[in-house]
This record gives sequence, structure tokens and C-alpha cells, in this order.
Amino acid sequence: MSLFEQRQSAVSKEYERLIALKNKPILPGNGIFERYENPVLTRSHAPILWRYDLNPDTNPCFMERFGVGGAFNAGAIKWKGKYLLVARVEGCDRKSFFAVAESPNGVDSFRFWDKPLAMPEAGDPAANIYDMRLTAHEDGWVYGIFCVERKDPSAPAGDLSSALASAGIARTKDLVTWERLPDLKSKSQQRNVVLHPEWVNGKYALYTRPQDGFIDAGSGGGIGWALVDDITRAEVKQEIIINPRRYHTIKEVKNGEGPHPIKTPKGWLHMAHGVRSCAAGLRYVLYLYLTELERPERLIAEPAGHFIAPIRGERTGDVPNVVFSNGWIADDDGTVFIYYASSDTRLHVAVSSVDRLLDYCLHTAPDGYRTGASVDTLTELIKKNLAYLESR
Amino acid sequence: MSLFEQRQSAVSKEYERLIALKNKPILPGNGIFERYENPVLTRSHAPILWRYDLNPDTNPCFMERFGVGGAFNAGAIKWKGKYLLVARVEGCDRKSFFAVAESPNGVDSFRFWDKPLAMPEAGDPAANIYDMRLTAHEDGWVYGIFCVERKDPSAPAGDLSSALASAGIARTKDLVTWERLPDLKSKSQQRNVVLHPEWVNGKYALYTRPQDGFIDAGSGGGIGWALVDDITRAEVKQEIIINPRRYHTIKEVKNGEGPHPIKTPKGWLHMAHGVRSCAAGLRYVLYLYLTELERPERLIAEPAGHFIAPIRGERTGDVPNVVFSNGWIADDDGTVFIYYASSDTRLHVAVSSVDRLLDYCLHTAPDGYRTGASVDTLTELIKKNLAYLESR
Repeated sequence: MSLFEQRQSAVSKEYERLIALKNKPILPGNGIFERYENPVLTRSHAPILWRYDLNPDTNPCFMERFGVGGAFNAGAIKWKGKYLLVARVEGCDRKSFFAVAESPNGVDSFRFWDKPLAMPEAGDPAANIYDMRLTAHEDGWVYGIFCVERKDPSAPAGDLSSALASAGIARTKDLVTWERLPDLKSKSQQRNVVLHPEWVNGKYALYTRPQDGFIDAGSGGGIGWALVDDITRAEVKQEIIINPRRYHTIKEVKNGEGPHPIKTPKGWLHMAHGVRSCAAGLRYVLYLYLTELERPERLIAEPAGHFIAPIRGERTGDVPNVVFSNGWIADDDGTVFIYYASSDTRLHVAVSSVDRLLDYCLHTAPDGYRTGASVDTLTELIKKNLAYLESR
Repeated sequence: MSLFEQRQSAVSKEYERLIALKNKPILPGNGIFERYENPVLTRSHAPILWRYDLNPDTNPCFMERFGVGGAFNAGAIKWKGKYLLVARVEGCDRKSFFAVAESPNGVDSFRFWDKPLAMPEAGDPAANIYDMRLTAHEDGWVYGIFCVERKDPSAPAGDLSSALASAGIARTKDLVTWERLPDLKSKSQQRNVVLHPEWVNGKYALYTRPQDGFIDAGSGGGIGWALVDDITRAEVKQEIIINPRRYHTIKEVKNGEGPHPIKTPKGWLHMAHGVRSCAAGLRYVLYLYLTELERPERLIAEPAGHFIAPIRGERTGDVPNVVFSNGWIADDDGTVFIYYASSDTRLHVAVSSVDRLLDYCLHTAPDGYRTGASVDTLTELIKKNLAYLESR
């Protein structure tokens, strides 16, 4: 066997072993959700077809020709009975693009489609695109809203980092062919925009995140809410803050809507990310909140603190101390598949149910904003527990 | 069995397995101290009584109702034959509070008392409290001095991160009921204050750490020393720097006293943390120094560099690249239990002895502040070693 054949065989075997890996919940967990043992997408899930020149004449050593560094932050949708992720795939060149991966069960066996998603440009070509939120809207289209990064043309010479963020909008009927619409018009930079799946007063409704700069939220107060008349010429005319960031919470520095909320009998169930600063930089965690069915902008409940924070191997990666999610799937039987990425590197799944997530939202104390309030909450729970144990 | 019973049983079994885990030293180590295999406190040590509503009627899925994210930076004291830690327990809501954990042997089987410590407020309610140093003072009280964080009322609108640090002071005779005294008065912010266990010229003596801002030491020069007339109205009137921070050392950016020093025949044995800046943010390590018995502010010896730095799993956590200690216990037989936390997440123990730590302080070269000086130190040791080997 030639070196080419030897390597191709070994690499293919390793790849098929990875895709065939069965996933199992880590038990007993905290009862609210179960993490699964293996990531559902990693850089190693990138198809051999993408990474290697398969012609032995031009690649006699079977060397990688297109390096993939990570597969993470994926939009998610149930589509014709399959679980589909539109992942952020990042090349070794730091540029990311979208690609669809498909699984029969939502927890393992995710396999990328042969071709990455060819996203048309809108206006100036993007330096980078990422973090697509998928929304199957009442209007019949599936929308993808994602961050578009371009170099800031007003940056002084020598400043190679200044960028401008805007929200790119595209739509599709088959997840293969995408119609690109003009980017969202907004007074502020927008890097984190999500389309609500239903009409609100006959308009499209967006969860936004106004920010001063490319990274800093600055004076931007939190997750915003804006109604849009025409999605093909979308513009934020008025924006209210519906979920503010706040001192000494897990969302002190920044927060942003995750995937679009799930409609439940008790309200819209939201997942968002919260960011705080620490001695080692920014720390990203996920939290949940619940809003009214008729007025999705009105808060019903928000448990204190994080819902998911990085643990164990999730803590490290290309950008350490991060969990992020822009995709979840609520199945017809109420099962919820939460696709969360760790440290800008790989994608995991945690499984829960609509009932349990509502129970969590409605029966976990809200943030009291002071250590004394947290101790009161804890002491009350202990008191009730001791009384209950005595009463038995 | 109901879901509640199944989960309660599994969670309880897992908990008791954790508490029963025996701890063993990792040998041969460096001879100065031995790390132990397992952390002595983690988030999973938080009692089930704290985290779960134990009533199946109100918690049918046996879901966590109060999430704990970490248990770390603990004050330590030998108390009625037991090893007691007053840990910083951090909820998922980012707020931390104090709780006592007890062990029969100092290295494993630490179990939290049923209730967290109810710390009375002093003045404006604290957003957060943490890092208690315990001192059994000659005056008959056990003191706890800790950091109190409050939002900076002068922070501009939109700045949600600016905080003020002061040193909270409380005392107790039983570690259950605490009398809160007024916070330490000081011209600068104080986040790291430790009470010396003996009178000094008939006064209370404090190790301080003057700093300009909440995080930055700024112009603050290092570990300070201040005498206080009345601990019930403690005020820093005069402050001298007894252990300065310095360029190109492990304490270039910041340093601060750990627990109170241990009295030994050869002087007061101190443990402190040193902080430097790197591409991934701040790096916290521990170091030792020795001061005169009669004048605890006068340096006798200080080995170059770190005594303990994070290794392996210690490197990652909620705030990576950190080891920190505010508690150690010197037993009557000279054994020293060093409780050090890693990455603001969990607490470990390392064991040494007064004799070995003195040997380390007195026979490890001081910092020469230049690579050339370090190479001289090393070359001298090699020369002596070769001469010794030849002479045998």
C-alpha cells in the first residue's frame, strides 16, 4: 500500500469511528437538563472531502489541504424528520462560514452535507460571517440572521483590529439555496439579532443587542426588541430594552438572545448568553427567561444566575471560559435539544423538556442582586427542607 | 420508584461517595510540601439540603433549586479537635457567601454544616462578600476579615462594573454567631486585609493592601502594615509597605497577605499571593516569606518566585490561571495544612511542616531580579553538587 492509501485508509477509519460514536447522557446531573458525553460537532467532523485533495498524483502524502479549526455556535432546526445544525465552521485561517450537519436523533451521528453553505454577499463583501439563528417564520420562509463583520473603513492606519458588526439576513425554503436580503439597518452596531417566529401586530419582531463598538456593549443596555415592517428592507426604527444587563450578575458586561424563544403554554421560553469580566478576560454563560405569550417583550420569570456554565473540558478552547448557544430544537413530544458550544471550539448537546425548563424558570428564585438576598433564598429553602423532613 | 425517588437516590449516592473519598498525597513531590490527589471542597460538596427542594409535591423531577458554582478561598482554623474551613461558596448567581465545612483529619471528609453563615451587614448591604481570613486573637475572639464589595455609586451611567472594596470585620466565640463590626476605615480601597494574631505594642496589627481601584493595585506598593487602637472602630491611620511588589517578579502587578502568619521559633512564617500579567490576563501564584518574631514587619528571608503555582487541572476553572490561599492550619505536632484554591472554583490541600517550610525559606535563594543572577544561583548549586559528588 502506498503512503497515500495507508493514510487515506487510517484517516477514513478514524472519521467513520467518530461519526458512529453513540452518545449517552451524564447522570444523575442536576435534574434540569442532562449533558451528553461527547460533543456533537468538532473540527474532526469536517468531511475528508473538504480537507484532503483525494488525488494521489497531486497529494501523494495524503496531506490536509484545507484545515478546519473548529465547528461550533450552530443554528438548529427540525427539518423533514431530521435534526439539522447550521454550524459556524472556522478554518485555520480564522475565517468562518456556515455548513449544514444532519443527524437522525439529535444527539449523535451528525454528518456534514457535502458542500458548505454558499452565502450570497450583500453590499461590501464580509470579512467574516457567523452565529446564525434559524427561524421558521409564519410567513413561510426559513430565515437565517447572523453576524457580518467588515473592517472599519474609518479606523486609523495601523489599527488592524477595528471592525463593524451588522446583522446579515438571508432566507430559504430548502436550506440549500439562500436569498440574501439587505443587512439590518440600525443606528448602533448589531452583532446579535434573532427573528421571533410569529407576527407581532402584523410585523416582524427582532431581538436585538445595540452596542457601541464591535466587542463592547458600551452604553447598550441589554437585549432589545424592535418591530420591522418589511424584512426585505429591515430597519430598526425603535428599540426597547426588554432584558437589561446589570451590576454583579452573570450578565454584567453583555448579554444577547440565543436562538429564538420556544412557544410553551406558559409563555415564550428564552435562552440567552450573559457575559462578565474576570481576571482572565470575559466569561460567557447561558441563562433562561420566560415572557408573556401575547406580549413576548414582557418578562414573567428569570431565574438567578447561569443555566449552563462551562465545566471540565468545556472550559478550554480557542477562546476559553465560554459557553454560547444559538440553537435549540423543541420536539413534538416536548423534548428540548440544547446545542451549546464551548470555548469557540466545539458543539455539545444537553437534553431537557419544555416542562422541566418551565419548572426551572418558575421555581428558581430570581436574582436578589446582593449576597444577603442569596443567603436568604438559601436559608429559606433549607428551613422548608428541614420542616418537610421532620413532618414525614 | 418515582422519578423523584430515583433521582434523589442517585444524587444522594453520588454525594456520599464524594464525601467518603479518601485523600492521598501525590509522591514524591518536591519535598517542600505534598499536594493531595482530590480537592477537599468543590461545588459538588454543597449539601443536597441546600440545592434541592426535598418535597416531591413541589419538586417532582428532583431538580436543583439553588445552584452552586464553586467552593474555594477558605479561611481555616483548628477548632475543638476538628479542621474547620470557612469557605467562599459561590452560587450560580455569582454571589458568594460563607459556609463552614468540617473534617476530622484536615485532608478529606469535609462536610458543610447544615446552614450557611449568616453574616450581619454593616452599613450599605454588600453586593458580595468573600475570602475570609480567620484569626484567633490574643484578646479571646476569633476574627474574620473579608472583602466587602459594593457598587460604586459614583460610576457613570452605563458603567455596570465599577465597584468599591472594603475590609469587613466580624468576630465570634463559636463560629456560629458572628458580631459584625464596622468596616475598616482607610483612605484607599482595601480588598485584602489580615489580622495578626498577637498584640503589637498593645495594638491590633493588620496586614493591608492599599489599592487605587477595585481591581488595580495602581500606585499601591504591596503588602502594608498598620497598627489599630480599637478593632471595634478600626481605622488605618498609618500604613507602611513591608513586602513590596516589584518589576519582573511573580508579584509584579499585585500581591497580598494570605492567611495570618504562623509563629515559629525562627520568625513569623507568611504565605502571600503574587500576581503578574500575561497574554491571557492575570496569573496568581503563592509565595512565602519570613519576618522577625519581635518585629513582624521586618523581613528575614524571601525565596525567589512561587511556592505554589497552578498545575494540571488547577489551571482551569471559572477564573483560570489562579491559585490563591487565605487559610492554613499549623497543628501542634508541626504539620501544616495549606488550603489553596485553584481558578476560583475548588479548594485543595497540600501538607508540609513548620520545619520544612522554614528550611525552604532559609535555604532557597532570594530573587536576583535578573536572568544573570538566576543563572549564577543555579551555577553555584551545580558547582557545589559536582564538588560534593567528587568528594565522596
